[in-house]
Amino acid sequence: MWGRGGPAFPHTPTLLKGFIMDQERRVLLAHGGGGHLSRELIEREILPRFSNEILNALPDTAALTVPGTHILFTTDSFVVQPLFFPGGCIGDLAVHGTVNDLAVSGGRPLFLTLALILEEGLPWSTLRQVLEAVRRATTACGVSVVTGDTKVVRRGQCDGLYLNVSGLGMAWPGFQLSARSIRPGDAVLVSGTLGNHGMAVLVAREKLFLETALVSDSAPVHRLVEAMLPWTAEVRFMRDPTRGGASPPCCTRPPWAAVLPLRSRPCPWTPAAAAVAEMLGISLLHSPCEGRIMAVVAPEVTQAVLAAWRALPEGQGACRIGQAIAPVGRVSLHTTLGGHTLIDRPQGEMLPRIC
Amino acid sequence: MWGRGGPAFPHTPTLLKGFIMDQERRVLLAHGGGGHLSRELIEREILPRFSNEILNALPDTAALTVPGTHILFTTDSFVVQPLFFPGGCIGDLAVHGTVNDLAVSGGRPLFLTLALILEEGLPWSTLRQVLEAVRRATTACGVSVVTGDTKVVRRGQCDGLYLNVSGLGMAWPGFQLSARSIRPGDAVLVSGTLGNHGMAVLVAREKLFLETALVSDSAPVHRLVEAMLPWTAEVRFMRDPTRGGASPPCCTRPPWAAVLPLRSRPCPWTPAAAAVAEMLGISLLHSPCEGRIMAVVAPEVTQAVLAAWRALPEGQGACRIGQAIAPVGRVSLHTTLGGHTLIDRPQGEMLPRIC
Repeated sequence: MWGRGGPAFPHTPTLLKGFIMDQERRVLLAHGGGGHLSRELIEREILPRFSNEILNALPDTAALTVPGTHILFTTDSFVVQPLFFPGGCIGDLAVHGTVNDLAVSGGRPLFLTLALILEEGLPWSTLRQVLEAVRRATTACGVSVVTGDTKVVRRGQCDGLYLNVSGLGMAWPGFQLSARSIRPGDAVLVSGTLGNHGMAVLVAREKLFLETALVSDSAPVHRLVEAMLPWTAEVRFMRDPTRGGASPPCCTRPPWAAVLPLRSRPCPWTPAAAAVAEMLGISLLHSPCEGRIMAVVAPEVTQAVLAAWRALPEGQGACRIGQAIAPVGRVSLHTTLGGHTLIDRPQGEMLPRIC
Repeated sequence: MWGRGGPAFPHTPTLLKGFIMDQERRVLLAHGGGGHLSRELIEREILPRFSNEILNALPDTAALTVPGTHILFTTDSFVVQPLFFPGGCIGDLAVHGTVNDLAVSGGRPLFLTLALILEEGLPWSTLRQVLEAVRRATTACGVSVVTGDTKVVRRGQCDGLYLNVSGLGMAWPGFQLSARSIRPGDAVLVSGTLGNHGMAVLVAREKLFLETALVSDSAPVHRLVEAMLPWTAEVRFMRDPTRGGASPPCCTRPPWAAVLPLRSRPCPWTPAAAAVAEMLGISLLHSPCEGRIMAVVAPEVTQAVLAAWRALPEGQGACRIGQAIAPVGRVSLHTTLGGHTLIDRPQGEMLPRIC
């Protein structure tokens, strides 16, 4: 936790500290040790960015007042490699990941924690860039960082920087989300193109130097969820297609709810993502997003939800990709050749460290 | 998050999976990929240990009902090395660390998250031992793991296993904890010997092979906090002396509340910890605990609180180590030679990766 004691003592050798921080500009083991440098990291890099009434007191534990007693609670660690990729970095990705988990559970994201595991020797500028991205993303999402933690491990004991972001939210009244409530005839909607995040990270990591306009879809989806509030009773189920892509939300928990004959054409891929996926032999259904929702809704609200989504910048590419039919426990895709192919969750690990 | 979709498909090659899991018994990248092996890890190792109504539904996000709207929220990452040390391991340490943060904030710990960052190739038996320790500790603390996350990074990109445990609790009514409320005459109490955890981890890591009975003090302190409930109005301030040891709780936030002339004799050290600390030139005031409380209480309840603590196994070694005097902003220790020495938070990093 961050809330460890007071400011630097008056007799701290400030010149020495200045030298360490401003000339070398590297993370030191001592930045995670609970002493003066830990405190300095928090006072220089954390508080100015995330200042709020709760965090400023630097408690071990944040004391919060949450409207109502129905709380949503989630956690995610982020180990994406590279730390920076077209369209984002580990900082905003971590905020979006946790905000989106709360959102697709039918919640309004409110409070985040920020736990850093830093590698000794990490350039200070990298840390700053990541924290700036966290700051921008939290502002955009309307959430507050209320507590956190910093650990530093020796060189070679982590790959630059790992983040954990846990989140608290309140449940929007009205949503009764469950895969069990999906009925034959329900529409399967996505809020935009699928698979861009995974492909963009892969291109960046493997240095494929493709002449492609491929950027990650990393973005918050909480406003897309809020856009559905007029139809909470008609929304059966939501998921964000992250690790494993769109296939795990299709292969949801038993009892198998429906067959969703997703159509591979028109399917929401960007040409760039489709080209990379084809070249690498990866199905875009297995490639993760971090700024999309899949929702199953009653057929009568399909057009209303799509219109509400499309009215938002993050929902421009919204479309209906399938329909629930009889509950026989399989999800199949209509292929471009006119056949069917079963959708399964991935067997191995094609795309490690994409979030 | 853990809540990704359904069980292994009927057509999964179970024999192959059995071979991978039971013969090699190593963590694979695919265990963090969101696919079948991720699911299997959760179904084999997580659910049987942490089964509860909320977790069993494997939601992306746990939906909780918390009594009251005053919520406590904390997070901590754990990177202790070695993973196993005399008196504990990273698993129980992580639970105690988060439970204790909630407890010393005047709260009752209720719900935890469990986020694993695993290194590819980690022996399955090690993972199991750590998860068993988490299970035992959560049971002992009366808290539930309600959601979690698993990431796997390649060999050489983390040091075996890192954990993040975030926690939610409710605030006990009555506590008004603040260093600002410390008054001259208040008693400074500790619930047991100081510094054992740091020394025990250091001896284990540096393979000092000392003939010593030194074991970590890793333990929950929530019952010690509950033991103070009859005197909430008289308890000014509490901290658990973790990273940086007892010195950061002394050097608490401004305005500097008090001078605490801690006495170095009788001081709550074990002979074994004192011997190791002396040999290594480390002050036990800077060596972390993970099963102790420091509390500043009104003088009239000193004996009552000490008696209540000593009635519990974890409070056997409770004693009064100092007294707040005039608020001049320094904390001094009466040395065994009869002089004074100032207590400051540590400057560098003497004890990396002790939690």
